[in-house]
Amino acid sequence: MSTPVITLTSDFGLRDGFVAAMRAAILGILPDASIVDISHDVPPQDVAQGAFIVGTTCPRFPEGTVHVAVVDPGVGTDRRPVVLMAGGHVYVAPDNGLLTYILSAHGAGGYPQQLAREGGFGMPTRLPVPEVCSAYLLNRDAYWLAPVSRTFHGRDIFAPVAAHIASGVRPGDAGEPVDTLTYLNLLHPVREEDAIHGRVIYVDGFGNLATNLVAREMEETKVVVEIGGQRIFGLSDSYAAGGGLLAIAGSHGYLEIALTNGSAARRLGAAVGTGVTVTTAG
Amino acid sequence: MSTPVITLTSDFGLRDGFVAAMRAAILGILPDASIVDISHDVPPQDVAQGAFIVGTTCPRFPEGTVHVAVVDPGVGTDRRPVVLMAGGHVYVAPDNGLLTYILSAHGAGGYPQQLAREGGFGMPTRLPVPEVCSAYLLNRDAYWLAPVSRTFHGRDIFAPVAAHIASGVRPGDAGEPVDTLTYLNLLHPVREEDAIHGRVIYVDGFGNLATNLVAREMEETKVVVEIGGQRIFGLSDSYAAGGGLLAIAGSHGYLEIALTNGSAARRLGAAVGTGVTVTTAG
Amino acid sequence: MSTPVITLTSDFGLRDGFVAAMRAAILGILPDASIVDISHDVPPQDVAQGAFIVGTTCPRFPEGTVHVAVVDPGVGTDRRPVVLMAGGHVYVAPDNGLLTYILSAHGAGGYPQQLAREGGFGMPTRLPVPEVCSAYLLNRDAYWLAPVSRTFHGRDIFAPVAAHIASGVRPGDAGEPVDTLTYLNLLHPVREEDAIHGRVIYVDGFGNLATNLVAREMEETKVVVEIGGQRIFGLSDSYAAGGGLLAIAGSHGYLEIALTNGSAARRLGAAVGTGVTVTTAG
Repeated sequence: MSTPVITLTSDFGLRDGFVAAMRAAILGILPDASIVDISHDVPPQDVAQGAFIVGTTCPRFPEGTVHVAVVDPGVGTDRRPVVLMAGGHVYVAPDNGLLTYILSAHGAGGYPQQLAREGGFGMPTRLPVPEVCSAYLLNRDAYWLAPVSRTFHGRDIFAPVAAHIASGVRPGDAGEPVDTLTYLNLLHPVREEDAIHGRVIYVDGFGNLATNLVAREMEETKVVVEIGGQRIFGLSDSYAAGGGLLAIAGSHGYLEIALTNGSAARRLGAAVGTGVTVTTAG
Repeated sequence: MSTPVITLTSDFGLRDGFVAAMRAAILGILPDASIVDISHDVPPQDVAQGAFIVGTTCPRFPEGTVHVAVVDPGVGTDRRPVVLMAGGHVYVAPDNGLLTYILSAHGAGGYPQQLAREGGFGMPTRLPVPEVCSAYLLNRDAYWLAPVSRTFHGRDIFAPVAAHIASGVRPGDAGEPVDTLTYLNLLHPVREEDAIHGRVIYVDGFGNLATNLVAREMEETKVVVEIGGQRIFGLSDSYAAGGGLLAIAGSHGYLEIALTNGSAARRLGAAVGTGVTVTTAG
Repeated sequence: MSTPVITLTSDFGLRDGFVAAMRAAILGILPDASIVDISHDVPPQDVAQGAFIVGTTCPRFPEGTVHVAVVDPGVGTDRRPVVLMAGGHVYVAPDNGLLTYILSAHGAGGYPQQLAREGGFGMPTRLPVPEVCSAYLLNRDAYWLAPVSRTFHGRDIFAPVAAHIASGVRPGDAGEPVDTLTYLNLLHPVREEDAIHGRVIYVDGFGNLATNLVAREMEETKVVVEIGGQRIFGLSDSYAAGGGLLAIAGSHGYLEIALTNGSAARRLGAAVGTGVTVTTAG
């Protein structure tokens, strides 16, 4: 049997010893854990972009993987530490929207279209946990490090709980069931008869813009994409093929705006929240 | 039995192949080593900040862990490569002060208060190895890679020695005993009757300032912290709770100065060595 | 038996989830793979510098290691994905010159001196695969992830193929033999009777300049190195010993230009391609 995989996502950076301290906490509980870094360079306190990384990367790991995600501006306040079981994976995280994409993928469909239209983009709402998932509030300190610090629950709560779960502790033993979790309004483009109005949800290190529009719903040759006052006609086959600003089916499945050999974000002055409209050519 | 853990700390960065070359050296000797990065972004040649990372992170790993630490501006000169056994852990490093916190934690208490007052902050001194520890000069080239380069002892000496020790070689077989090691004057605040004068010893990636004042010695509600011409009253419960410049018990155990949603280092123009004074309110 | 080692080199950075997605792909095929990062901060799309990192680091790993290298500006175009077996190691990469140093080390000596003199520095040429190596075009999609994205063959082709090979699939089963591979004109200094004219082939994170001149061919005390209008006399024993601009035998085996406590690249305004001339003092 292979060793259990535990992944780590955070905004801690790799410069200080923070991530290593999480690894130490895990190895103290589960010495043969296989620990994989997803990213520790989530823009500081940017829960929305952290949620994108978690949502597009974590589910690609083998079933049974335990994921620790800590982008946690509310550490030390009353925000809830939780564990979510979804799709054969386990997610240990603060309940601040970091699991939005995971919840959405498992049918947190209760998000009202009306709310999406009116509610501010990226705003948090508490929604019911999808039926195919289960979630628990982490309130059993037997599975934490002692003493718990004021500022570093990644090391003292999230990592140790993940290690205990990877060691065989049932998530339900680490806390009590919760019925709702926090969900960010990121994934709800507004559909009109002849256009879809989406937004940029992630800017990667190359300046490529991921939008909340699902690429496989597009007819490749016929779409017209408008963003930042520019029009792009049709989807490209490769970054090289565009020769300038281009739209392409991103490797994450979302419509992506890119610039050949450059940064679309800089060219367009775009950021998370920038609007994008897709229509279909005659 | 689980695989031996070897940690790596350096100022090599992760951009070039330096760290990977250390890993290759280890895996060539101990193919199933579990190698954990602490940090490779120690500010270049900054032994004092490297020492903080080593001192606050390495001891959190399970006993038996072998730690390689290489911030080594003197590589190729006559600075000594050493191994230190302390608290069930093994440290392989240049003898330039990088192990200051480890030595201090094991009672390198011989550091004279008089010297601390007079000596320059951060200056090196040779002190006796604490009685509960043992140390050896690495001078047996049988445990090195051949040929040894002029500029990269991390790969050619420190990593291979660590791998051999993790494989079962006794540290005493890798070199001859030494009685003294280099210690930096970092950890000795000056105590007066009604005030303690400390200094900043580490600036983390968020701009939080760790000081050399031990947080649990403070009365939380009554302290007055002065730094950079600013006064902070009492300790905060969380980064969010401060709403501005704040003092808090850091996750490393030292008093920490932080700025809610910002960089205290930038706000205060503070760096390693900046003075901080704590008094107790009426 | 220890777990197979798979190394990863790319220009993806560690900020986004790209590298983690490659790890997920590997772990899905080979759950106990030992995955080691070489670098993910190769300057974006800089095949020449990626080739240097691969060439100077990968062969240091134990025999049997499988190396994935992805600096791939041509992803999605007709550039060929290949696997190369060389020196007991396996390399999985796009055929764009990223394996230049590996090929050269195994005798891709067919590169004509005439071509080196005339051909542009760094330009690609197709050369025969060295006789002691073998190479295959990756065209068996049974070993890929499905569906293959347009923009991320690192995740969908290179990583899965590497995992299958590390699991025991023979490289020849993953594709059909190829006779030629792409080679960049990086490694051919021009020799005159009384001088060698080389070039900078890599700039590391400290600003040290690696050249394409082999250090052990130099007489340490007698060389005169000219670069950027400066003259350096003799080779130094350590970075510290120079006290300014210095030449030294780099840890990679090439002649290196460095600046004590500084960046030679900045001081000299040098970059990949900058000329360097070595003569011998009377």
